[in-house]
Amino acid sequence: MSDLILVLNAGSSSIKFEVFEGSALRLLWLGQMEGIGAAPHLLVRDAARRSLADRRWTTDDAPGDHAAALGIIMDWLKGVMTGRRVSSIGHRVVHGGPDFAAPVVITAAVLRRLEALVALAPLHQPHNLAGIRAAMEHFPGVPQVACFDTAFHRGHPWEADSFALPVEFYDRGIRRYGFHGLSYEYIARRLAAEDPALGRGRLVVAHLGNGASLCAIRDGRSLDSTMGFTALDGVPMGTRCGQIDPGVVLHLMQAEGMTPAEVARLLYKESGLKGLSGLSQDVRDLEASDRPEASRALSYFAWRVRREIGGMAAVLGGLDALVFTAGIGENAAGLRARICDGLGFLGISLDPQRNARGAAEISATATAVKVLVRHTDEERMIAEHVLATLAAGHAAAA
Amino acid sequence: MSDLILVLNAGSSSIKFEVFEGSALRLLWLGQMEGIGAAPHLLVRDAARRSLADRRWTTDDAPGDHAAALGIIMDWLKGVMTGRRVSSIGHRVVHGGPDFAAPVVITAAVLRRLEALVALAPLHQPHNLAGIRAAMEHFPGVPQVACFDTAFHRGHPWEADSFALPVEFYDRGIRRYGFHGLSYEYIARRLAAEDPALGRGRLVVAHLGNGASLCAIRDGRSLDSTMGFTALDGVPMGTRCGQIDPGVVLHLMQAEGMTPAEVARLLYKESGLKGLSGLSQDVRDLEASDRPEASRALSYFAWRVRREIGGMAAVLGGLDALVFTAGIGENAAGLRARICDGLGFLGISLDPQRNARGAAEISATATAVKVLVRHTDEERMIAEHVLATLAAGHAAAA
Repeated sequence: MSDLILVLNAGSSSIKFEVFEGSALRLLWLGQMEGIGAAPHLLVRDAARRSLADRRWTTDDAPGDHAAALGIIMDWLKGVMTGRRVSSIGHRVVHGGPDFAAPVVITAAVLRRLEALVALAPLHQPHNLAGIRAAMEHFPGVPQVACFDTAFHRGHPWEADSFALPVEFYDRGIRRYGFHGLSYEYIARRLAAEDPALGRGRLVVAHLGNGASLCAIRDGRSLDSTMGFTALDGVPMGTRCGQIDPGVVLHLMQAEGMTPAEVARLLYKESGLKGLSGLSQDVRDLEASDRPEASRALSYFAWRVRREIGGMAAVLGGLDALVFTAGIGENAAGLRARICDGLGFLGISLDPQRNARGAAEISATATAVKVLVRHTDEERMIAEHVLATLAAGHAAAA
Repeated sequence: MSDLILVLNAGSSSIKFEVFEGSALRLLWLGQMEGIGAAPHLLVRDAARRSLADRRWTTDDAPGDHAAALGIIMDWLKGVMTGRRVSSIGHRVVHGGPDFAAPVVITAAVLRRLEALVALAPLHQPHNLAGIRAAMEHFPGVPQVACFDTAFHRGHPWEADSFALPVEFYDRGIRRYGFHGLSYEYIARRLAAEDPALGRGRLVVAHLGNGASLCAIRDGRSLDSTMGFTALDGVPMGTRCGQIDPGVVLHLMQAEGMTPAEVARLLYKESGLKGLSGLSQDVRDLEASDRPEASRALSYFAWRVRREIGGMAAVLGGLDALVFTAGIGENAAGLRARICDGLGFLGISLDPQRNARGAAEISATATAVKVLVRHTDEERMIAEHVLATLAAGHAAAA
């Protein structure tokens, strides 16, 4: 009987999933249940992105929580997975705290440790854990592996890991964790497989999606990242502010009377490209718009990303390649050009045609620094981690 | 009768002053009244730094406010300025808000506008204004000029001036103002006078003192700076945190129950080198210490400054010179070496001997980027502004 790996990514009102087959990790199906608790909507596609299911629920029979939603996903899977079984499950977990520097097989003790990290990522971690609990209920006895967005960064030197606060804050977990680690790890591994010399080199990877950060990678390992304690820091995002003077946060409360919850809402939901443009959080909308606010917001984004590329290069002591990935990084050619404009002093120069068509290598010929566009695949990275983690566990048990 | 320019820098419990003579701005005396309201202490020296006065007050007859302190300074001055008169006064004012992009002659209307900016710099602005009011009382009819730490940065492009917040926050003054502008302007002017080509070039100036920031200067004008809305942002300082995830500020309040005032105290007074080392906020103490915490804190400081040098270079599109100034920048050779270590890819390479003795040019021969050490002199910059501003006013009135 063929073995399947189910990869789950549970958010506040959604569960995304992908199903991989065998040790070659052939992608079979991918989909998501959205609108959990409100207007649920199940979408499933095959590896060629053909629709296999598209179902909506009325409020009466709608799945009301993650467990019910996962039950529906499982019912659908059972109808197609004939002769195959889900033999392991991988979960994306946003926060592994100071200690989880690698994926881990989930036990009751691990789950308790992950619950203790909820305060570090209150907007994401509880939903990730709800997905784990739902999966444990539906798949008793099936090994489950937690894969962390923070783990890839846990080898940062102390200088990149700490804020300039009294050391007791570091000791109790107030650190620059960094996120998007599964994406960075995927990119680093793929580049090393493609080109081992480059894989040992100095890379700046720009994960620019709805969330966005940059990572400095040397010899395949993360050295620094623009995101810190939360997903707010670093470069601006669709609706998040990115780097902002802490004095602004204090001012909004002390001088303007905002509550911490109001400030959090402002910085997470109303800022970034959406706030700057007053139009949209979506780079596609802004690139299509002829409003000056749209162009200004994109120019702002490019300025901040360019500045962080310089910062990451300084940490690395120079760079060998700049890699764009995630939704914006993979698709927004105009924004890539804006970002790279003026970085000639680093050896970065784009070939406009290659950039326009999103070629794998978009740098001009014979430039010192390769500029690459790569598709990231965090779900596949999780599936790879599940295989490796369980194999290591079996080897240890043998 | 020879004309004197009195330059005043009023802090929370101190007034620093310098007295310059004539249009050549010959420095005659400099000093400070410290401990106003507590244990006042007047120190005055001449241009050769010889002590001319050193007086302490018992609590009974002590000057209790800025006006009384300035009265004592004036009494002292009257005893030495025979045949000369204070014909103009320059004030250092930390915050000029969005509008003051140049020094300004202080009128009642200007003073009201400066009072309206107190909320932007509550820790400094009220004391600056107390100094102005005291001087207006002691010197009725003597023209007074306000010189702003923010003014030099007011030509920043919008991308460097705005946070990624909804635009109405920018419109109501929540901006990346930048500080240390009088220092940067002084350095930029001196370099342009020394070497006009360099003065038109791309400079990163690292003002590293008890407060610290970096500035990107092109063609003599500020393009970006690491400090933002308050003096907290950017690189870590003696007791200030520098750049920190806004999520940390929210976490300390939401999860740890701190008040905004407690967080402000932490970030302004207990962080930076003092917090990181647990030993001292003073680089000299840390360089002299053999404790690993001391070296770690210095390494941290160097990492963050190095990272910001990369960011400022990216904004400039490369750099022609890196300039170290202010207390740490001018004197801490070991820290300069740590900062520049690994920046060879930018064309930065130090000559160890020149760096050790703090030569004016500390870069290795024939490197692409000059690395310079320059003494900054904000008080002289203010005196120059007083002369130019009053001359322009007389020209306009003529």
